[in-house]
Amino acid sequence: MSSLTRRGFLTGLSVTAGGAALVACASPDGNPMAQQETPDPVGDTPRLYDAIVPFDGEHQAGIATPAQATLNLIGFNFVDGVDRGAVSRLMTSWSEDSRRLCTGETPLGSLEPELVVAPANITITCGFGPRVFEVIGAVDKRPAWLAPLPEYSLDQLDEKWGQTDLVIQVCSDDPLMTSHATRHLVRSGMDYARVQWMQQGFLRADGAHTPGETPRNLFGQVDGTINPREEEQFDEQVWIDEGAPEWMRGSSSMVMRRISMNMDTWEILDRPSREEALGRTLDNGAPLTGEDEFDDPDFEATDKFGLPVIDRQSHVFRAQPAEGHPEQRLLRRPYNFDLAPEPGSEQLSNSGLVFLCFQKDPLRQYDPIQKRLDEADRMNEWVTHIGSAVYWMPPGTSADGSGGDTYWGQGLLEA
Amino acid sequence: MSSLTRRGFLTGLSVTAGGAALVACASPDGNPMAQQETPDPVGDTPRLYDAIVPFDGEHQAGIATPAQATLNLIGFNFVDGVDRGAVSRLMTSWSEDSRRLCTGETPLGSLEPELVVAPANITITCGFGPRVFEVIGAVDKRPAWLAPLPEYSLDQLDEKWGQTDLVIQVCSDDPLMTSHATRHLVRSGMDYARVQWMQQGFLRADGAHTPGETPRNLFGQVDGTINPREEEQFDEQVWIDEGAPEWMRGSSSMVMRRISMNMDTWEILDRPSREEALGRTLDNGAPLTGEDEFDDPDFEATDKFGLPVIDRQSHVFRAQPAEGHPEQRLLRRPYNFDLAPEPGSEQLSNSGLVFLCFQKDPLRQYDPIQKRLDEADRMNEWVTHIGSAVYWMPPGTSADGSGGDTYWGQGLLEA
Repeated sequence: MSSLTRRGFLTGLSVTAGGAALVACASPDGNPMAQQETPDPVGDTPRLYDAIVPFDGEHQAGIATPAQATLNLIGFNFVDGVDRGAVSRLMTSWSEDSRRLCTGETPLGSLEPELVVAPANITITCGFGPRVFEVIGAVDKRPAWLAPLPEYSLDQLDEKWGQTDLVIQVCSDDPLMTSHATRHLVRSGMDYARVQWMQQGFLRADGAHTPGETPRNLFGQVDGTINPREEEQFDEQVWIDEGAPEWMRGSSSMVMRRISMNMDTWEILDRPSREEALGRTLDNGAPLTGEDEFDDPDFEATDKFGLPVIDRQSHVFRAQPAEGHPEQRLLRRPYNFDLAPEPGSEQLSNSGLVFLCFQKDPLRQYDPIQKRLDEADRMNEWVTHIGSAVYWMPPGTSADGSGGDTYWGQGLLEA
Repeated sequence: MSSLTRRGFLTGLSVTAGGAALVACASPDGNPMAQQETPDPVGDTPRLYDAIVPFDGEHQAGIATPAQATLNLIGFNFVDGVDRGAVSRLMTSWSEDSRRLCTGETPLGSLEPELVVAPANITITCGFGPRVFEVIGAVDKRPAWLAPLPEYSLDQLDEKWGQTDLVIQVCSDDPLMTSHATRHLVRSGMDYARVQWMQQGFLRADGAHTPGETPRNLFGQVDGTINPREEEQFDEQVWIDEGAPEWMRGSSSMVMRRISMNMDTWEILDRPSREEALGRTLDNGAPLTGEDEFDDPDFEATDKFGLPVIDRQSHVFRAQPAEGHPEQRLLRRPYNFDLAPEPGSEQLSNSGLVFLCFQKDPLRQYDPIQKRLDEADRMNEWVTHIGSAVYWMPPGTSADGSGGDTYWGQGLLEA
């Protein structure tokens, strides 16, 4: 990490003045640093979309990787009869195909090489739901947190967006690449698992923002300011480490919450009311007591009437770690969704977040934060959780086994 | 046009070696050429997404404009009680807001300036369905082609994707910009019209392809090779001209066909079979009798058995203009869609095209081509038309009225 600038760290991508793209893809996932000089096909136009995020590494890519522009999150359920051997075969096949897709190579047996020409920072990341441990006969190994989250009082969960056996997260800066990689994996896995749901999301396109900028959601909210940014923070918050069995080291967990956001009622508010609910300004995400996005909020500050500048029910106050609990931090990696209103709906919108977060232990990290939000976050007036699932995210891989697993979950599946 | 290179013509965008983007947005819509030097916010990284396509001009932008990465096509129906005055007010408001959004400015009254920072080549294009002419009491002025298309034998039209009173096409290279502009127009128009459907689509991202490259659909097919490219071709095929009443000059028509593509059965084919059905190669879209995409197909060429090299039922053969009918050409501007399979479906995919094409007269241009395809295109085994609508696309605008209408359809609405 030390050889990387903050900017390279945050973006995984820099472009030289001459127009060739220098891809520096080291990131806090601790993966080997890949540098590659991409050719410039048309004079002075850099092809940002040649950028490659290394598939192999200590941790899976797509977690610490700066969020790309498009997301397909696909929940799969096993077909009947899948056993440990079948799960191993599926993971071997998916890992090999994903390694190739993420390197801009056509997977073996694919007849669509023309659709794999622009890797566009694609990452493909796999997670195991609770039932994998049953199917492979290893319930005793299942982490205690790999189970339905506690119920929160305001949840309005729809089974349609519930727990699945497996999840695949495909992210890239090119919607065609994201689509084709998804299609390839759905097809190649069809004998083992079928799509239960697909959640599509987007962020501002690569190039449409200052590199490293925190993304915004559809409320205009800067979302992800308190994310880990340094390697040590990732080690503290995200990566499962020495305390865990060998097969878990370097892994993580994903919490998926589908969150509906009521644009119609939010937009009735004036800007001061929106900012009061958030506890941050809309223009740059600074806490209401500060000037810059990364200023620490001052929850003791009061206004001329003696009232707290940052409301005790604001999102920024409720989302902070409880006193004495610095472990209540995690990595947010949310995507926006924005679909047509449901037929017959009075709503003008059907928008929200595919909220994804990563942490060592959802019960120690996500749950206490969500409990506090559920109790009193003023944003609850405009947001509703409508889907929920938890996955174990196996450690990273290496093509030749020198770095541990060659395929997702090998350490568990071959234990 | 003469001062523009072919590349500038095709892309509307060039990037200088120093990293600043020089936006040269003239295109065959004949709009005033805007050149603007965009600032470079982070050293050597060009912000492609500062690129602006001029909103005003002789023709609406978003027709001749090279297709951007993302599409929201929104079909609106009027609420009860809308009359000519109301349509004028809606069009005035939508045109003003769109002019600002397309210039990277916040529309008047919008409280979300942070969501309008990267115009990303956004275009907003408006069309009138047949019922507009009833609502404004001008049925006598309605073009004969502004009516349901003839039925084609293989159509499986779903009312869900049918004709609406109005259509708005939002395209940009940034999904967040496309989403926010859509939201703004839906909200600002809510007293006049409500969303009936929204069709979202995508193409390869800007920067993920060689500028000017013909887009591919999810079958891997290069789609749009025979599109008009020169100004005279646009005049011949797309823009309604002198023969028409004053208020129609510079306008066009849009045909929307939602086309389902069966990925599961298509992908069973080997590459030669796919190419035989298309009549073109998959790798570069060349006709099977040629080497380059733009080579003319030789329909007389035969193989060693005396059989035509290009099958008489291939897509390329059936889609060509009938002999003696050079007017059977049009501008294709299709977008891919790729959604989750319908719940309970045996299909692995739910993919296809939001097929949009523009022409002077759908009955003289689109209809004869579609009749031939419907009769015998081999691609019919894998594609099904499931939605259909036709719109009149008003002429372009100018902010001060010097170039004609200041808002969409003014010439018609104030006649």
